[in-house]
Amino acid sequence: MIDKHFPVGSMNWPDGTAPVACVDVGGTKVAVSIADTQGLRGRVAEPTIKQGERGALALQVIRLIGQSCESAGIGTDSLAAVGVASCGPFALHRGMVELAAPNICGGLAGQGRGLPNGWLTALLEEPLRLAFPAVRVENDGIAALEAERRWGALQLNGLPLANCAYVTWSTGIGMGLCVDGRVLRGKNGNAGHAGHLFVSDNDEALCGCGNVGDVEALVAGNAIARRFGQVGFADSAALFAAHYAGDALAKVIVDELCRVMGRALYNLIVTLDLQRISIGGSVYWHHRELLLPKLRSGVQGKLPALTDGCELVSAGLGAQVGDFGALALVV
Amino acid sequence: MIDKHFPVGSMNWPDGTAPVACVDVGGTKVAVSIADTQGLRGRVAEPTIKQGERGALALQVIRLIGQSCESAGIGTDSLAAVGVASCGPFALHRGMVELAAPNICGGLAGQGRGLPNGWLTALLEEPLRLAFPAVRVENDGIAALEAERRWGALQLNGLPLANCAYVTWSTGIGMGLCVDGRVLRGKNGNAGHAGHLFVSDNDEALCGCGNVGDVEALVAGNAIARRFGQVGFADSAALFAAHYAGDALAKVIVDELCRVMGRALYNLIVTLDLQRISIGGSVYWHHRELLLPKLRSGVQGKLPALTDGCELVSAGLGAQVGDFGALALVV
Repeated sequence: MIDKHFPVGSMNWPDGTAPVACVDVGGTKVAVSIADTQGLRGRVAEPTIKQGERGALALQVIRLIGQSCESAGIGTDSLAAVGVASCGPFALHRGMVELAAPNICGGLAGQGRGLPNGWLTALLEEPLRLAFPAVRVENDGIAALEAERRWGALQLNGLPLANCAYVTWSTGIGMGLCVDGRVLRGKNGNAGHAGHLFVSDNDEALCGCGNVGDVEALVAGNAIARRFGQVGFADSAALFAAHYAGDALAKVIVDELCRVMGRALYNLIVTLDLQRISIGGSVYWHHRELLLPKLRSGVQGKLPALTDGCELVSAGLGAQVGDFGALALVV
Repeated sequence: MIDKHFPVGSMNWPDGTAPVACVDVGGTKVAVSIADTQGLRGRVAEPTIKQGERGALALQVIRLIGQSCESAGIGTDSLAAVGVASCGPFALHRGMVELAAPNICGGLAGQGRGLPNGWLTALLEEPLRLAFPAVRVENDGIAALEAERRWGALQLNGLPLANCAYVTWSTGIGMGLCVDGRVLRGKNGNAGHAGHLFVSDNDEALCGCGNVGDVEALVAGNAIARRFGQVGFADSAALFAAHYAGDALAKVIVDELCRVMGRALYNLIVTLDLQRISIGGSVYWHHRELLLPKLRSGVQGKLPALTDGCELVSAGLGAQVGDFGALALVV
C-alpha cells in the first residue's frame, strides 16, 4: 500500500458539490486546501502561530482559508463547510473546541519548552464558527483514521476495517482508534492520546504535557531535536541522514526510538485487539522503508494470541493523510 | 463504595425465574454458584485443574455445576443458563471458546513456569454446550465490567457509565473496557488484555505469555511469589504482612508494584479517555486501603486534560465481583 497515488477523483465526488476547506493544524505547521470536483488544490501552509493573543491561531486559520480560496480561484462565501483536523488534547468551552495542546500552549508544561506564549488553551472552533457556516473540528488522529478507513490502508475488500488504528509519528505522536466498527471518543473526545503512554523507565525526557519519559517525550520529532541535539543530531533529518551514512550512534538511537514506538503499537494491540495499524506522519513517512520493518519486529512474537492477526502498514494516503483527514470530516 | 454489602435481592430478580449457574474460571481456582430468587448460593470452589487431557478443566466445571446445584437443592436440569466468566486470552475453534491462557496452558510459555501440562489451549465452551442448554462464555474482565456497570461502582445516578474500565489485580491482571457506552471486544473478543502492556524496562520477570517484563509479569499475584520468594516473601500475603509490620524492603517492593500498576491504569485513561476505573481481584481486594491511595497518586497530575476527570475506585461488588460477573452474562 506504500506510495499509492491517490487521485481525489476516486472519492466519487458528486458533480455540482460545493467546495469545502480542509484545515490541518499541527504543532509545527498549519495547512489549508480546497476540495471540490477539480480535486484537492490551492494548498497553502505556514508555521503554526504560537504568539500573541489566545485567538491568534484561529485568526491564522481564517486568513489561510482565504488565501487557499484565492489560490483555488473561488470566493470564501462559496465554501459549504470547513473541516479542521487538529492536534490535541481538546478542552471544551461553551461546547466549542479549544486546544490544550502542549506543543502549542506555553502555559501547559510550565517550564523548559521555550514556547513564546502563556496560553492554557488556544481558541479554535468559536472564531471559525463566527466566520463560516458549517465547521467540524476533530482530533487529527481521528480525522486521519476516518480518511484511512474510507480511502486509505484501513480497508478490506473496499469496506472500512472494524478494529484498527491510525498512528502519526510527527512533531508529536497522535492516534485515532476504532474498535468493533466504531471510532473511540471517550468522555471529552480525547480517546487516542496514547502518545502520552508510558512504556519505558527512561526519565531523561520532558514532554510538553509535563510528563517525564512518555512516548512523545522520547520519540516525537520535537523530542529528537531536544534529546539528541547535543550529540550532533539537530533534528530528525540529521539523525536519519547520519543513520543512512552508517553512523553507529545514529543506528543505536534509531533502534531505541523504534523499540519505544514498537512498544506503544504493541500496547494498542493488546488493549484493543486490533486487525491493522496504519502509520503516517512526517518523521515516519520520510523514513518508512527503514522504520516499518523495525516497528514490525518490535511487535511480532509478543503475545501471539493478540498480535498474530494484526498487521502494521504505512498510511495508504501517504503524505496527504492530513489533508484527507480534514476532508473526511465534511464529506 | 468500598465494602458495600450487595444483596442479590436488589437486582430485582423476577419471581418464578429459573435458576442459572455462575461460573468463575480463574488461574488459581474455579468457583460455581447458583443464582435464583433466593439469591446467590450453593457456592463451591476448587483449585483450577491443570493436568490430564485438554478437556479436564471443562469436565471440572461441569462437575462443580452439579455439586453447586446439589448444595442449592436444585436439579441440574432446572438450570436455564450457565454464565462463564473466564480468564483469557480466548481462541475460537469451530466458533467455540477455548482458553489460550498462560496461567493455565503449559504449552504456551514453553519454559520455566512448571505447569504440569503441554496444552496450547484448554477446551471450555464446547463440552459445556453438550451438557447444558444455554451457555455464555466471556472474558472475566468483561463479565465483571458488565456487573459493575449494572450493580456496582461503574454507575452514575443509577445508569451505567459510558467511559469506564474494570481492572482485576489477582493471580493475573485482567481488564474490561467500555468507551462511548459500548463494551470493547476487538477482532477475537480479546480487547482488554492490557495486563500484557509494557510500561517499564524491567527485564527480570517472565510472563506466562512469554513476554519479559510486562505488567502481569511484574505485579500479578503469581509474579509476586516468583519474583520475591527468594528475598523472603513466599506470596503476596507474606509480602503485605511484612509491609504492615514495617519491613523496609516490603515497603519498597509494594511501592514499585503500585508504580507499575499505576502506569497501566494511567495508560488506559490516556488511550480511552475514561471517567472511572473500578478495581478488584484478590491481591487488590485484601489490601485495598493500602493500595488505592498509592495507585491514585500514580495517576494524579499526569496529563490533567485526560486524568482530572477520571477517578479510581474499589469494586462496588467487592469480593463477589467474579460471581456477579458470571451472573451478568445470563440475566
